Amino acid sequence: MKRREFNLNLLFTAAVLPTRQSSPQLRINGQRINTHLSEIAQFGKTPEGGTHRVAYSDADLQARQYAMKLMREAKLEVSIDAAGNIVGRRAGSDPALKPLMIGSHIDSVPEGGSYDGQVGSMGSIEVAEMLAENNVTLRHPLEVIIFQNEEGGTIGSHALAKGLSEKELSLVTNSRKTIREGIKFIGGDPEKLASVVRKKGEIAAYVELHIEQGGTLHNEKIDIGVVEGIVSVNWWDVTIEGFANHAGTTPMNGRRDALLAAAKYIESVNRVVTSIPGRQVGTVGRIQAFPGAYNVVPGKVTTSLGLRDLDAAKVQMLFEKIQDEVRQIETATGTKFEFKQINATPPAPTDARIRRAIDESAKQLGFTTKLMPSGAGHDAQEIANLCPVGMIFVPSRDGISHSPREFSTPADITNGTNVLLHTLLKLDATKPD
Amino acid sequence: MKRREFNLNLLFTAAVLPTRQSSPQLRINGQRINTHLSEIAQFGKTPEGGTHRVAYSDADLQARQYAMKLMREAKLEVSIDAAGNIVGRRAGSDPALKPLMIGSHIDSVPEGGSYDGQVGSMGSIEVAEMLAENNVTLRHPLEVIIFQNEEGGTIGSHALAKGLSEKELSLVTNSRKTIREGIKFIGGDPEKLASVVRKKGEIAAYVELHIEQGGTLHNEKIDIGVVEGIVSVNWWDVTIEGFANHAGTTPMNGRRDALLAAAKYIESVNRVVTSIPGRQVGTVGRIQAFPGAYNVVPGKVTTSLGLRDLDAAKVQMLFEKIQDEVRQIETATGTKFEFKQINATPPAPTDARIRRAIDESAKQLGFTTKLMPSGAGHDAQEIANLCPVGMIFVPSRDGISHSPREFSTPADITNGTNVLLHTLLKLDATKPD
Repeated sequence: MKRREFNLNLLFTAAVLPTRQSSPQLRINGQRINTHLSEIAQFGKTPEGGTHRVAYSDADLQARQYAMKLMREAKLEVSIDAAGNIVGRRAGSDPALKPLMIGSHIDSVPEGGSYDGQVGSMGSIEVAEMLAENNVTLRHPLEVIIFQNEEGGTIGSHALAKGLSEKELSLVTNSRKTIREGIKFIGGDPEKLASVVRKKGEIAAYVELHIEQGGTLHNEKIDIGVVEGIVSVNWWDVTIEGFANHAGTTPMNGRRDALLAAAKYIESVNRVVTSIPGRQVGTVGRIQAFPGAYNVVPGKVTTSLGLRDLDAAKVQMLFEKIQDEVRQIETATGTKFEFKQINATPPAPTDARIRRAIDESAKQLGFTTKLMPSGAGHDAQEIANLCPVGMIFVPSRDGISHSPREFSTPADITNGTNVLLHTLLKLDATKPD
Repeated sequence: MKRREFNLNLLFTAAVLPTRQSSPQLRINGQRINTHLSEIAQFGKTPEGGTHRVAYSDADLQARQYAMKLMREAKLEVSIDAAGNIVGRRAGSDPALKPLMIGSHIDSVPEGGSYDGQVGSMGSIEVAEMLAENNVTLRHPLEVIIFQNEEGGTIGSHALAKGLSEKELSLVTNSRKTIREGIKFIGGDPEKLASVVRKKGEIAAYVELHIEQGGTLHNEKIDIGVVEGIVSVNWWDVTIEGFANHAGTTPMNGRRDALLAAAKYIESVNRVVTSIPGRQVGTVGRIQAFPGAYNVVPGKVTTSLGLRDLDAAKVQMLFEKIQDEVRQIETATGTKFEFKQINATPPAPTDARIRRAIDESAKQLGFTTKLMPSGAGHDAQEIANLCPVGMIFVPSRDGISHSPREFSTPADITNGTNVLLHTLLKLDATKPD
């Protein structure tokens, strides 16, 4: 990998324009961003020390007001767009350039943690505050954005990338408000959503700082993850039909046990997914047996399949291998499987130029890096439809996320924010590809 | 098996007392019992052609009234005991002898079939009617009994064998009535339950005719099953603790997937139970995964274990073998299993003398027989606490039971009822062991 990185760096260096002498020495204020993170964690704080701040809740509204206060202190021109996203603008020196965008989200899953989304949001505001303090004017305009309702399906960023359909606006969220009601609640205007949709090319680039949510960086003691792309997410509902019968009177060799077939299937998913090298994952997360009694051989099982990888062709190959195993299980158990795909999000690769800017920034700051996929979805995958995107990961202790036990160290958060700053400076200084 | 049966027959023949010449020629009226079966099937008939006649429902009450009418037509002296069981008595010639008892139940599971319990109930009434028509007086008094609420836990027969506790009386049944309310509804008296409990030795013998509910007789084309005993029924609640984590960000080798562990466990139950010869069965019928989402590695699974065999020591051995496999699964998957036994019904062996009487009666009538366990529970297992018991099985088509598709042929029902008649005649004619 070393040789390749060297070449990439050479390519990148060639594209750098002359920039002010002071830039390489600039550092964000680590104490300040970590203070802001602990302050925003008060909104929706749970007894377990986590954060319950689902989109459109009172806690969400309070946290948004707190974030807007910080943005104004960072000299950003703050507005709420019609979709309810918070946008803070800082003018650039070259009026011909499109804006560079940085940001994340501050809503949480139910009973979630205090880092997911919040690190990137507070980090982006900290970068803006650092620029203001040091009177650094970028060539590009800067937009710091806090997307609304990321956890409920990247709603705010989807509003920019594709718009929101009537069906999406009518979905009931964890706040018990529909998305339409939620948008009104946080100061947006569901009647003016068309004004929010951006055209491809209107944004120069988007960079998002985020916690990894997995254990790779923590376990391998690496400082910064350079995200290759956001994986393709594929879910299927799986139905297995056998024959329900009396568990006392039906001999073992006379059964068509749908749960035994499900057990063989769950094992085969694990076996197929781990049979080849790579970072692909396969998960069976849901299961129900019918009738579901101690004394009845299950006649039907509903279960699931989840497959994720950066390479859509690999996902297809894994799915076909699982199908081959399923055909054998059907024969062995006298059952019939049916797969119905209910989600197929394509992979969202990041931009090579931005990956290089992140990797070089991190190395110049003295950090170790690792190129890695994002197994979780992010606003960046929506914005990838509009412009080149990049993502910076910082370690998650023990890989725990969506939990009160979610944690990243103050040092890792400071490091990640400094990488975000210098990535932004590099992108601002370079010609577009 | 032939040699052994021959020896048993020799033993049995030695115990036969002189009996009236006409007995071997007696036959029940096959057309009548099958008509009665189709008539009682009207009470609680479902659109699918099955029977929904849960204990204490209106359909149950109507079917009981129909059965009592038939019993009176068969010259039985009919009463309802304090527990709500229907008892029809026919006097014997020897006042020193204890009663012989035959019967079954007429309540069904929800959405059940029209044969379970009903064949033995109508068959017992048919035997009494045949005796009355032919003016046959047995030496023993005869009791034809229709036990109430067999499907809800052999309640009526338990009232005879052990009595009903306050806790049992307060259980809410499928009729939405408690057992106490149900007993009043069908004409019993919950305040006088003590009068129903029989002492050991008060009954000479109990014989129950029943459908097999499994596919052994049907598949092997055998006419009559001679039941060796009612198997021990053992249920456990099983809890598997792993660790819930994000299905996108948690690499395959960093998971403690409770559902993968459950899959390996379900396969191991099947493997252990089928690894030795015999008619033991092992079933996993229930399962739930937590949190049960497409995108979360299950952190916890609750599931079950059911083991049945005639030999309690074999059940224990199978349980220990499964525990051995579970220890290996725990190590392989980073999970922890817990087993909590919630039911442990001991085996109820049938009486050797009654088995011989059934087998000889069947063979004299020209039927093939097979010695077999009952995998399902029956009122006979309760009455085994009071006296020697026997059970006669007739084939169930495709082994289907507790379903509208439950079916036994009119010929099989006629055959089984004739075997019941001649078993009763033999028991009446022989000395007790």
